[in-house]
Amino acid sequence: MTDLPCVLLTGFAPFGGETENPSWDAVRRLDGETLAGHRIVVRCLPVAFDASLDALRTAIEQTAPALVLCVGQAGGHAQLALERVAINVDDARIPDNLGAQPIDRPVVEGGPAAYFSDLPIKAMRAALLAAEIPAEISQTAGTYVCNHVFYGLMHALREHAGVRGGFIHIPYAPAQAARHPGAPSLAIETVAAGLRVALRTALDTRTDRRLAGGAEH
Amino acid sequence: MTDLPCVLLTGFAPFGGETENPSWDAVRRLDGETLAGHRIVVRCLPVAFDASLDALRTAIEQTAPALVLCVGQAGGHAQLALERVAINVDDARIPDNLGAQPIDRPVVEGGPAAYFSDLPIKAMRAALLAAEIPAEISQTAGTYVCNHVFYGLMHALREHAGVRGGFIHIPYAPAQAARHPGAPSLAIETVAAGLRVALRTALDTRTDRRLAGGAEH
Amino acid sequence: MTDLPCVLLTGFAPFGGETENPSWDAVRRLDGETLAGHRIVVRCLPVAFDASLDALRTAIEQTAPALVLCVGQAGGHAQLALERVAINVDDARIPDNLGAQPIDRPVVEGGPAAYFSDLPIKAMRAALLAAEIPAEISQTAGTYVCNHVFYGLMHALREHAGVRGGFIHIPYAPAQAARHPGAPSLAIETVAAGLRVALRTALDTRTDRRLAGGAEH
Amino acid sequence: MTDLPCVLLTGFAPFGGETENPSWDAVRRLDGETLAGHRIVVRCLPVAFDASLDALRTAIEQTAPALVLCVGQAGGHAQLALERVAINVDDARIPDNLGAQPIDRPVVEGGPAAYFSDLPIKAMRAALLAAEIPAEISQTAGTYVCNHVFYGLMHALREHAGVRGGFIHIPYAPAQAARHPGAPSLAIETVAAGLRVALRTALDTRTDRRLAGGAEH
Repeated sequence: MTDLPCVLLTGFAPFGGETENPSWDAVRRLDGETLAGHRIVVRCLPVAFDASLDALRTAIEQTAPALVLCVGQAGGHAQLALERVAINVDDARIPDNLGAQPIDRPVVEGGPAAYFSDLPIKAMRAALLAAEIPAEISQTAGTYVCNHVFYGLMHALREHAGVRGGFIHIPYAPAQAARHPGAPSLAIETVAAGLRVALRTALDTRTDRRLAGGAEH
Repeated sequence: MTDLPCVLLTGFAPFGGETENPSWDAVRRLDGETLAGHRIVVRCLPVAFDASLDALRTAIEQTAPALVLCVGQAGGHAQLALERVAINVDDARIPDNLGAQPIDRPVVEGGPAAYFSDLPIKAMRAALLAAEIPAEISQTAGTYVCNHVFYGLMHALREHAGVRGGFIHIPYAPAQAARHPGAPSLAIETVAAGLRVALRTALDTRTDRRLAGGAEH
Repeated sequence: MTDLPCVLLTGFAPFGGETENPSWDAVRRLDGETLAGHRIVVRCLPVAFDASLDALRTAIEQTAPALVLCVGQAGGHAQLALERVAINVDDARIPDNLGAQPIDRPVVEGGPAAYFSDLPIKAMRAALLAAEIPAEISQTAGTYVCNHVFYGLMHALREHAGVRGGFIHIPYAPAQAARHPGAPSLAIETVAAGLRVALRTALDTRTDRRLAGGAEH
Repeated sequence: MTDLPCVLLTGFAPFGGETENPSWDAVRRLDGETLAGHRIVVRCLPVAFDASLDALRTAIEQTAPALVLCVGQAGGHAQLALERVAINVDDARIPDNLGAQPIDRPVVEGGPAAYFSDLPIKAMRAALLAAEIPAEISQTAGTYVCNHVFYGLMHALREHAGVRGGFIHIPYAPAQAARHPGAPSLAIETVAAGLRVALRTALDTRTDRRLAGGAEH
């Protein structure tokens, strides 16, 4: 079993006054599962600009994954958001869990302006919708710790030939929505099922499908 | 068992191009359950102005319920919506399942302008939030078949002393949201759990709690 | 000039931490104008449950209007909202300007559950859209001072045979939206132009047009 | 007068079934005006992937501007959106005005993944809010012709040392919102006033202000 290649799947700790983070609650359900000939290893990242990437890079060294998928909470979203691009900027509206609040600072000094996801997001979205799980393409992962981790992941993978990376944002859990009047949510079970579909599609697909998934603005 | 007083719980058939209606999918899960000393009987109502109330009135006659709760789909909503008031107007943006599309016609000719719910909606909302199920008070049930049934229910109950009635709108199921980009949803299991909480609270509460649940506009 | 029949047009004072209320800023631009053979008289109502209706009833006594249109602010709305119905309930999420915060109290003890607008809201909406001014039918005026005034107006008009009444909610002014990230707004000039179109249509139309303007929920 | 350095300000032609484009309607009001020692020259760009950048590059050659600001319509937005970043991808949900509908194609083959705006968007937003004009920072300009032009502009400016460029998205005009139920809008006058404030600030500011303007996702 341990000879199988590995997928590194990460969630985040709670932040912004929440007591749970559905990304970790969903991700940890997949710990140890096998998908498309890969064993899933999960990690929980801190919601802190500096510590998050340290933890991610350590996890990559420890697990030597074939594919890395990071998952984060997007309060206010109704669907799984397959992120297309990470940009080289930290701009924090609220402090992170260690009190840092960078403004208009690059994630990586001298790094490129952006990295695109390596994952076949159009095929993943099509597979999710076929599985009746709500999903959309997102053109921005924000400028907070999620984008920071996504950018830092893609930057780090330049040193790991053949390893692919990507990011998915997920809605609040229903219990969180009960504390945010009017906010959408998805059950942790639905998110976990969606992550399995997304990962299997990513592992099975080398060339993405040519499907429109853009936005006018 | 059949000596227990009964709760009549209704959902609706699919409409508006949908192939499922989460109100019926959730409601039927409670069929035959016992809650607070009451047995739950479920019915599926047609999405048709005239036939819906015929079916509801027949079900009331057949089951002689102590309490009637009707449940309908509110595509675009993120939370369970406990309806406060039904108004005496049919105004259909889209035809019903039998092709009828009334405009600015009363539900009951000569009936009062509106009926308020008999149910303790503030206590029900508090119980739902305590159970971590997203819920809100709604000041309008619209002007389509749901409002028609809610109004017709309250009008019919004038002839049934002591029988209480009310209405809850629920979001799309996730499978529906997968076909409506950006639309919120709730899992059928979450809705069914919410209906149990709401019904138990309604059965146990005679005087509603004094909790703000209004809107500025 | 003073022999012309009169229209009473009211706005509200600022509330909820705002320093302006676009309803009054728009309404007062029409002061003294003549529309369809009627002279417009304007009044500013206090945002206070009790005082608002006292002021409105006094204004009705003083001006003996043929038609009364009350206008209020709906922060978060993008379009003029022609209100269909006022309900007999006060339920305040925030205190009014005098500190009162009634919960689930009737506007008028023993009054009917609701009153419908007397105005031809479908014809008014059609005229607004033809004039390229964004407008929609609204099925709820909320449960705060606006609904309180609308209900109180319709109740008072029962003693004034032939006098018609109604209510329109309007969006924030752009200056307010600059303080509410993401909030829609309409320019005061656009709202004032819309009120002229709406009033002229109301004065010229006795039987409303049969146009769909409902909502599914 | 013609000795003044020049600002090139562009809008777009109508698209997507609209008969007007508020970006051009607002932009052309500033034609020939002088702001902070610069003369404004306006151009209308076609909504077509290939032709838009041809027209923009020609206009840059003809006018030799010190600063280029492109403006586009964002139907559904309520506020002026100061764009932070353009990404190197075309992904069209709807065909452009010449029928082209590229999917996941780079704007510039071999170009960098993204370009950041040269303009001081935080200072511009602060100036707009101080002028009571609704404005926000946007982390994505989409993947349609607007992003295509923004990316192509920044790429072209690499050959024009010292010339700065940026992009602003604006809401529908009220007349458009009258045809889109519930859609927000801003008056053309408000947008034009906002463009003057934004341009003056851009011309007067070399180092942007350190103000948070990010998003969590």
